[in-house]
Amino acid sequence: MHFDYSSKTQALLDKLNQFMDQHIYPVEQQYLDAVHNNPKRWATPAMMEDLKDQAKAAGLWNLFLPKEYLPYGAGLTNLEYAPLCEAMGRALWSAEVFNCSAPDTGNMEVLAKYGSAEHKKKWLEPLLKGQIRSAFAMTEPAVASSDATNIETAIVRDGDEYVINGRKWYTSGAMNTNCKIMVVMGKTDPTADRHRQQSQILVPMDTAGVTIVRPMQAMGYYDEPVGHAEVLFDNVRVPAANLLVGEGEGFAIAQGRLGPGRIHHCMRLIGCAQRALDLACERVEQRVAFGQPLSKQQSVRESIAQMHCDIEQARLLTLKAADQMDRYGNKVARDIIAAIKIVAPNMACRVIDQSIQMHGAAGTSQDFVLSASYAYARTIKLADGPDQVHMMQLGRNLIKDHVGAIKA
Amino acid sequence: MHFDYSSKTQALLDKLNQFMDQHIYPVEQQYLDAVHNNPKRWATPAMMEDLKDQAKAAGLWNLFLPKEYLPYGAGLTNLEYAPLCEAMGRALWSAEVFNCSAPDTGNMEVLAKYGSAEHKKKWLEPLLKGQIRSAFAMTEPAVASSDATNIETAIVRDGDEYVINGRKWYTSGAMNTNCKIMVVMGKTDPTADRHRQQSQILVPMDTAGVTIVRPMQAMGYYDEPVGHAEVLFDNVRVPAANLLVGEGEGFAIAQGRLGPGRIHHCMRLIGCAQRALDLACERVEQRVAFGQPLSKQQSVRESIAQMHCDIEQARLLTLKAADQMDRYGNKVARDIIAAIKIVAPNMACRVIDQSIQMHGAAGTSQDFVLSASYAYARTIKLADGPDQVHMMQLGRNLIKDHVGAIKA
Amino acid sequence: MHFDYSSKTQALLDKLNQFMDQHIYPVEQQYLDAVHNNPKRWATPAMMEDLKDQAKAAGLWNLFLPKEYLPYGAGLTNLEYAPLCEAMGRALWSAEVFNCSAPDTGNMEVLAKYGSAEHKKKWLEPLLKGQIRSAFAMTEPAVASSDATNIETAIVRDGDEYVINGRKWYTSGAMNTNCKIMVVMGKTDPTADRHRQQSQILVPMDTAGVTIVRPMQAMGYYDEPVGHAEVLFDNVRVPAANLLVGEGEGFAIAQGRLGPGRIHHCMRLIGCAQRALDLACERVEQRVAFGQPLSKQQSVRESIAQMHCDIEQARLLTLKAADQMDRYGNKVARDIIAAIKIVAPNMACRVIDQSIQMHGAAGTSQDFVLSASYAYARTIKLADGPDQVHMMQLGRNLIKDHVGAIKA
Amino acid sequence: MHFDYSSKTQALLDKLNQFMDQHIYPVEQQYLDAVHNNPKRWATPAMMEDLKDQAKAAGLWNLFLPKEYLPYGAGLTNLEYAPLCEAMGRALWSAEVFNCSAPDTGNMEVLAKYGSAEHKKKWLEPLLKGQIRSAFAMTEPAVASSDATNIETAIVRDGDEYVINGRKWYTSGAMNTNCKIMVVMGKTDPTADRHRQQSQILVPMDTAGVTIVRPMQAMGYYDEPVGHAEVLFDNVRVPAANLLVGEGEGFAIAQGRLGPGRIHHCMRLIGCAQRALDLACERVEQRVAFGQPLSKQQSVRESIAQMHCDIEQARLLTLKAADQMDRYGNKVARDIIAAIKIVAPNMACRVIDQSIQMHGAAGTSQDFVLSASYAYARTIKLADGPDQVHMMQLGRNLIKDHVGAIKA
Repeated sequence: MHFDYSSKTQALLDKLNQFMDQHIYPVEQQYLDAVHNNPKRWATPAMMEDLKDQAKAAGLWNLFLPKEYLPYGAGLTNLEYAPLCEAMGRALWSAEVFNCSAPDTGNMEVLAKYGSAEHKKKWLEPLLKGQIRSAFAMTEPAVASSDATNIETAIVRDGDEYVINGRKWYTSGAMNTNCKIMVVMGKTDPTADRHRQQSQILVPMDTAGVTIVRPMQAMGYYDEPVGHAEVLFDNVRVPAANLLVGEGEGFAIAQGRLGPGRIHHCMRLIGCAQRALDLACERVEQRVAFGQPLSKQQSVRESIAQMHCDIEQARLLTLKAADQMDRYGNKVARDIIAAIKIVAPNMACRVIDQSIQMHGAAGTSQDFVLSASYAYARTIKLADGPDQVHMMQLGRNLIKDHVGAIKA
Repeated sequence: MHFDYSSKTQALLDKLNQFMDQHIYPVEQQYLDAVHNNPKRWATPAMMEDLKDQAKAAGLWNLFLPKEYLPYGAGLTNLEYAPLCEAMGRALWSAEVFNCSAPDTGNMEVLAKYGSAEHKKKWLEPLLKGQIRSAFAMTEPAVASSDATNIETAIVRDGDEYVINGRKWYTSGAMNTNCKIMVVMGKTDPTADRHRQQSQILVPMDTAGVTIVRPMQAMGYYDEPVGHAEVLFDNVRVPAANLLVGEGEGFAIAQGRLGPGRIHHCMRLIGCAQRALDLACERVEQRVAFGQPLSKQQSVRESIAQMHCDIEQARLLTLKAADQMDRYGNKVARDIIAAIKIVAPNMACRVIDQSIQMHGAAGTSQDFVLSASYAYARTIKLADGPDQVHMMQLGRNLIKDHVGAIKA
Repeated sequence: MHFDYSSKTQALLDKLNQFMDQHIYPVEQQYLDAVHNNPKRWATPAMMEDLKDQAKAAGLWNLFLPKEYLPYGAGLTNLEYAPLCEAMGRALWSAEVFNCSAPDTGNMEVLAKYGSAEHKKKWLEPLLKGQIRSAFAMTEPAVASSDATNIETAIVRDGDEYVINGRKWYTSGAMNTNCKIMVVMGKTDPTADRHRQQSQILVPMDTAGVTIVRPMQAMGYYDEPVGHAEVLFDNVRVPAANLLVGEGEGFAIAQGRLGPGRIHHCMRLIGCAQRALDLACERVEQRVAFGQPLSKQQSVRESIAQMHCDIEQARLLTLKAADQMDRYGNKVARDIIAAIKIVAPNMACRVIDQSIQMHGAAGTSQDFVLSASYAYARTIKLADGPDQVHMMQLGRNLIKDHVGAIKA
Repeated sequence: MHFDYSSKTQALLDKLNQFMDQHIYPVEQQYLDAVHNNPKRWATPAMMEDLKDQAKAAGLWNLFLPKEYLPYGAGLTNLEYAPLCEAMGRALWSAEVFNCSAPDTGNMEVLAKYGSAEHKKKWLEPLLKGQIRSAFAMTEPAVASSDATNIETAIVRDGDEYVINGRKWYTSGAMNTNCKIMVVMGKTDPTADRHRQQSQILVPMDTAGVTIVRPMQAMGYYDEPVGHAEVLFDNVRVPAANLLVGEGEGFAIAQGRLGPGRIHHCMRLIGCAQRALDLACERVEQRVAFGQPLSKQQSVRESIAQMHCDIEQARLLTLKAADQMDRYGNKVARDIIAAIKIVAPNMACRVIDQSIQMHGAAGTSQDFVLSASYAYARTIKLADGPDQVHMMQLGRNLIKDHVGAIKA
């Protein structure tokens, strides 16, 4: 057991931080302005392409894809990638610069793991090159989608095709004008066993019957230019070969996807929270009220100390989860992945909220990343399963394991 | 001591609730759509005028203005108005229907109390009729404005005029196309005693030198069509008669305004929170996950119970504050006003957040009032003084009173 | 609605506070020393009898017993008694001085309501005179007793007698040498409907087969000289007439008892918490650290403010509950009684804990009431049903009421 | 970075756990009974000596003393010792079995580091052999002792002696009949610089003028047979050679002692908390209420999950602190030591409290370790500096470091 990053990780992190200092922070607000002033609200501002080229040139590209998918991706372990992902979380839009942004990361991993040669050529390769973007359609407005047996979207075989009918929302990525492909979760057999009813299928965005109904708001934000869409599937027909792996594999594919997806969210949230703390430290030193800088107030110091303790603990737990995933696989690491999914978003909400409070009205404004970070952290308490589902599973497993241990 | 509303209050509340049921809830979403689809983003949708006429006809108009200002206003006590204000808080935009929306309410009270006959004729009367809207310019981007000695905006006498220079933000109401008048807080004498440096002055929106720089976001929301503006005052000249009361009275006027202002915010927040709980009760009964409605989950029941306890306690404290204000005046009620300003926004944040969680992704969406309510509750933890300032004063007073009592 | 005590209540409260100032606080520590240095650990120190005489003489006696039991008791409403009960809670052992201490209060109310003429003559009258003490035996070590169907103690009819077998613990009052009578909850018919299985029966302490096994500790305290006993019932025989009301009435009697019992606990806890806050105000003014009194630290002021807000809210909720019980009966007030049972102990735990922290090591010592108050508050989160049971019922009722309301 | 214990640590931990299973848990309650039934309340029960012999024989002895003091102690790093210390924390009295109990550990470390050859021979060696016990006298009743400049105990040179006058309390260890030596903190020069006023001096328990006034209670517990004493020093004379290192070194010695002392407390508290969670898992599986085991209740599962997350995070932070102390020294590790001192006791209080709640009345009783564990955790929020002092320092340092970094 030791607690320093490996020299390989440290070198990459230094390089990434340098890139952030040189290329991201100086244009952070400019990019956001470009997004919000863009008459084509869902088109990514042009400056993104330049930044992507620079990141590629710096060797900071596709860092997320684990070594088992080499030669695709950078071949890092989860433990190596974790601090890099955290650093990207400090400026939320920066992940795309490094081709490490959701939901593309999860989709690329799914395609690398479960895609056919043709799927890889057609969708994975352009995604890995950052030429197109993608979406993931899972949540449905009509049902509590965290229970996968509730999913109502139907995927029905008809000759050489599958016909898809249903309504999804919070389909991340689907608003973007460059989004070309969707991974869709639905049911091929509602009568099968709980976890064999679901399948996942590839649906090109321009397929007939696919309607983008509207952009969904998340805690006040539309998250342009990526966005979250309500999508209607009305007799959408795709070739049977678009089905990933086989009928009934949808739940297993989702599970495989969610482990890494969750840890990425957690690392980014730790970056968000650390950024919020850094901003708070700066702010309380600058602001004077009632005769002294806020930094001299005991309650401010107590808050700052508590924020640091909360962040550092969540960081260590997440790094340990990454280590467990690397060494024992996602299945064995299941409980610790649930644990970080519970811990990190709550921690980030608390920390960012305290930073907002220390910033006064400015903390709620568009001039600081704080309120957008808060919205991100808050929605992650629901995305990929609400806290309660993870606590239910983790609690149940802990009791079972403990009782098993004392019986044995 | 007893805990039922008076029959007068109950009758008004029944009438108001009936009005909400008939005229507000059925068009709640339609009004929000009208706002967001309006090409003139800062113009109030036309349907508002009809609703205002109906409210006037129903005798539900200017309910906020206390009896000391009769014949202006409805002449209710704070205790009588409190449950009405709570009811309006259930649908945030509805307060304007009854001419009870901030910052007009505070501005009208200030004009009724401190305005000259001419001020009343020119500004108070059209405001009371709902013909124009108004803004309040206090907070400044450059300083911690909760400490009034930090205010930098200069109000300098020059012959028969005052010249105003400074930069304000979060000037509520100033974005609206029908906003005609601003109450501006600034300093007439930075060398005077701490609480005699400030003055308040009336500035018509169309005065030369007034520039609306941009709308400010609050936790992701621009709150169209009312909004919060950044406003630049560049050698703005107004007649000397526009100064309220006299030089050095600005702090006292602000204090007089903030008592009622705070209790109104608190009552509205209690309405927001109760609405969030009502929505949660409905949602958990409808949604099924893992084989049963959420309402059967023990943790859901515990949350619902806790939300209710939190709301009811804050409500009682706020009603007691209203009663103290009515019977002993705002000065004597100072500590309990501080107490509700600490309690109610925090309570509302917690309750609404839990309701969001029970709603899943929908809770973060534009389809429910929840995330906008959360943003409102969160910003009130900063508006009219951050929690910390109220806790500082309340804590200091409690210690002083206690130590005084045992010495006596 | 108004928030001042009636003049009758205020006069009683003034008299009681004066009594506390003159007779209780000056000997508070002396009484505790008398208890702890008493070689007869479970005998009440002699000074108690003098204090009781003085209280009787002052007309501060049996204040708890509601007006429906006149001529027994002082005939106060719950709302009138509540602030008096709070005042007694400031010094925990003082309730006995006024013959208002648990479990005697609950037992007296049960005897007044359900006892036969003979029961009243034999047990109620000496209890009302403060001549004897009593115990209440409900909780059992072997089962989760908050679910009354779990109760295992058997009460079996045998001719003119009932035979009782079972094991109870946390039988409050049973350790005291002057305890003469126990009210015992058991099952007469385990096959009846859920809430008709239980009966309550009177068991004199000196009945053959009753064994006091040991005193139970509650968070480190034995609470001498009253205590909580583990009691074994081994073929205990009592006359059939000792059964209260009739077979199957035990659950209903328990419910009737618990409403007032809970509100008394809550009021006392509010007194504990207010005392803890008063002590904190004094302490932080006296203690100097790092160059200034603790009272000047912003975080101390914030804590003090928060403690006050928490206490005042719980107090208002409890007073409202008392008012509802008085006007609509305990059944209608069921939900608000659940609410205060959830709110008050948690509030008291938080407030007392913060006061302990401000006191440093002294706060954990026998020199201050704080840690004993904490232990009391903590155990009340479990006594008379753990928080979770009350939240379950309150949550379920709120959802049902709300859904009923919108369907209607 | 990796997160598994070294094979050396794991082997020691396995051996220790086996020892706990074989020799400690089976007699855990028996030892406590022996303590509480002992007429000589402050004498350690005889069975302790046997257990110590067995621990010595098993090579589980003096594990706490770091490698820099070899050949004294077991020569483990902090990181190696941490999980062992955690394991001992599961049964609080067990640390003495392994000669790893406070305050002896801190005293031994001080003697090893700062003691003269004679001090070592006379006091350190018998302590290391477990032949005698010791006490540490720092806290004073009259002042806020967390600010070392407040210390009032005077240590005045008089010829070849020092004369000590003052009053201490919460002098841990001083009640025990086998306690032979005290380390006393006092002031040799109240006019020197803040941190040069204090000195530490060795005072044999049987020195004339030393009076054990009384045992102090900590949250209801006297913690027999070790205890916390109030000690009066009335013209106590000891040889000048008893002063450790030199005049003015007292603060530095205290700082050196507190680093390891704090991490030991934190590790033990993690053991307490883990034990509380293990007990909870067992309990909720056994107890049935309202028709199902508590373990099937969603709120129970959520609590269990949260408890686990809290423990695991605090554990990782504490292990990292140990690693930092080992590699960079206690001075560099200052901030993370402050962090664990803030985090671990609060975590333990929360976790143990939840376990108590799940246990019902039993959780507050002497039949489970829970309420004593809670009392220990609660007092550690005050011992070695209250949370607020650590937060003050950590907060201040974080702000300074951050502002320094951005200026650099």
